[in-house]
Amino acid sequence: MQIGMIGLGKMGYQLSLNLSNKGYEVVANDVNLDAMKKISEDGVQIAETIEALVSKLANPRKVWMMVPAGEATEQVFQKLLPLLEEGDYIIDGGNAHYKDSLRRNEECEAKGIYFFDCGTSGGVDGARNGACTMVGGNKDAFIEIEPIFKDITVENGYLYSGKAGSGHFLKMVHNGIEYGMMQAIGEGFDLLEKSPFDYDYEKVAKVWNNGSVIRSWLMELTENAFSKDQKLESIKGIMHSSGEGKWTVETALDLQTAAPVITMALMMRYRSLEEDTFTGKVVAALRNEFGGHAVERKEG
Amino acid sequence: MQIGMIGLGKMGYQLSLNLSNKGYEVVANDVNLDAMKKISEDGVQIAETIEALVSKLANPRKVWMMVPAGEATEQVFQKLLPLLEEGDYIIDGGNAHYKDSLRRNEECEAKGIYFFDCGTSGGVDGARNGACTMVGGNKDAFIEIEPIFKDITVENGYLYSGKAGSGHFLKMVHNGIEYGMMQAIGEGFDLLEKSPFDYDYEKVAKVWNNGSVIRSWLMELTENAFSKDQKLESIKGIMHSSGEGKWTVETALDLQTAAPVITMALMMRYRSLEEDTFTGKVVAALRNEFGGHAVERKEG
Repeated sequence: MQIGMIGLGKMGYQLSLNLSNKGYEVVANDVNLDAMKKISEDGVQIAETIEALVSKLANPRKVWMMVPAGEATEQVFQKLLPLLEEGDYIIDGGNAHYKDSLRRNEECEAKGIYFFDCGTSGGVDGARNGACTMVGGNKDAFIEIEPIFKDITVENGYLYSGKAGSGHFLKMVHNGIEYGMMQAIGEGFDLLEKSPFDYDYEKVAKVWNNGSVIRSWLMELTENAFSKDQKLESIKGIMHSSGEGKWTVETALDLQTAAPVITMALMMRYRSLEEDTFTGKVVAALRNEFGGHAVERKEG
Repeated sequence: MQIGMIGLGKMGYQLSLNLSNKGYEVVANDVNLDAMKKISEDGVQIAETIEALVSKLANPRKVWMMVPAGEATEQVFQKLLPLLEEGDYIIDGGNAHYKDSLRRNEECEAKGIYFFDCGTSGGVDGARNGACTMVGGNKDAFIEIEPIFKDITVENGYLYSGKAGSGHFLKMVHNGIEYGMMQAIGEGFDLLEKSPFDYDYEKVAKVWNNGSVIRSWLMELTENAFSKDQKLESIKGIMHSSGEGKWTVETALDLQTAAPVITMALMMRYRSLEEDTFTGKVVAALRNEFGGHAVERKEG
């Protein structure tokens, strides 16, 4: 089967190799010419433009978009859509907002094109050696592309999740859960660090990975991290986020669903971005105003 | 090696069988005569009283306490301590508060008895077939009893965690992390339930267990739960707790450590115990007072 792959970033590149390895005829495109050159050397066919990519695919065409969510995905999608014909397939494997996927699905449906929103988890290694995918879209049309998902994922690692939008919604919630789990793990080790005991965190994570209730891939990654730097002294506790946690919380607001732990995990990420806070200044000033409690003055 | 086991509840019973299976000569005691009769039929030696149990063990004696934390553990400990002699070992495999373990260790040290606080995870199945244990106490003396932990746990499933108290502290924090993880998982599925999509939760948990970032034993248990009851319609969302989450939050307060996600997970458990809340009544009344917003009246 032929697959057009647009986007050769960390995920798209590895996924192209994964597909190629599984016998798919991949035609790859990216605006980054270095990535194009590199994947060409890895034996994958390239197309200089999206037009060229589409022209190299036989009907019904299957085009996988693997570009950053938001503007980049929209640009690729709007360029791609007029080039495709009734019966063709677009798979968006990026982390698009599910509402964008709902709208893109409508635009595709108007042209008789099948749109699939595919949430992809498992990181770069997963993309190369076996990912986890959650795919929303037309159920009957899914059968045609199901072998792709079967081939690029680990065993039992793909799910047809329902109508369009459901794949990206599921991936979003997956990431929200991930935020909560990660913050809980972080807080636990913070308690150990401030405890009167002297723990070896790599060993703690290791024993927790063997037979405990909280054994998990995240705890395995925790073990890996501590094995490289036993007190994580080389890194700062600044927790960036790439948007899916925020979307999960926004969705919780839209749906009037109490999701306090996921929300708090996101808020703690934002807190970590600031060295000092204006909240802190206001509260310190108020304590000083009403109780004469000392404030800490800035130097100089 | 001989081991005295005091407590034949869910964990102690299975642990006795596990030890017996591994070639230990277990002498078991419980106030519950049915449990005593049953384990006797399973081929484990029993002792009618703690005195009898101690008298059946050769020096240095190894006595494992596996009774509920708090009053029950204290009673057994205070009964046991005067019966033991210098060089004997007490292992508390229950979920005692680490400060109780610190105090019990001091009481033991005064008599030259080795005290070990052993946090045990992995549930009833773990106790029977391979648990995860975190053990605090005298390092040199640990070597003598290390084979026990090696034998009753899964591979790499035990850790000598440091001085007395460190084992139960570690288990407490483990449970705190568990609270946060479980609440995050719960919130995620709540979002799916309120979403515009129609997910099969068993299949969702299953795909998340295969290649995703949040794959974990807890997600496997989630999959099991949904496989038995696809919308969990047969149970209520009342989340009881057995105390370790509370201790984790109290410890976070003592150590002035921000643990908002673990704390919130605990608070949400408390919230779940109430059908309606006084908080809610107060807030509804206030909205009515200042803005004339409607309140919902109780029936009749």
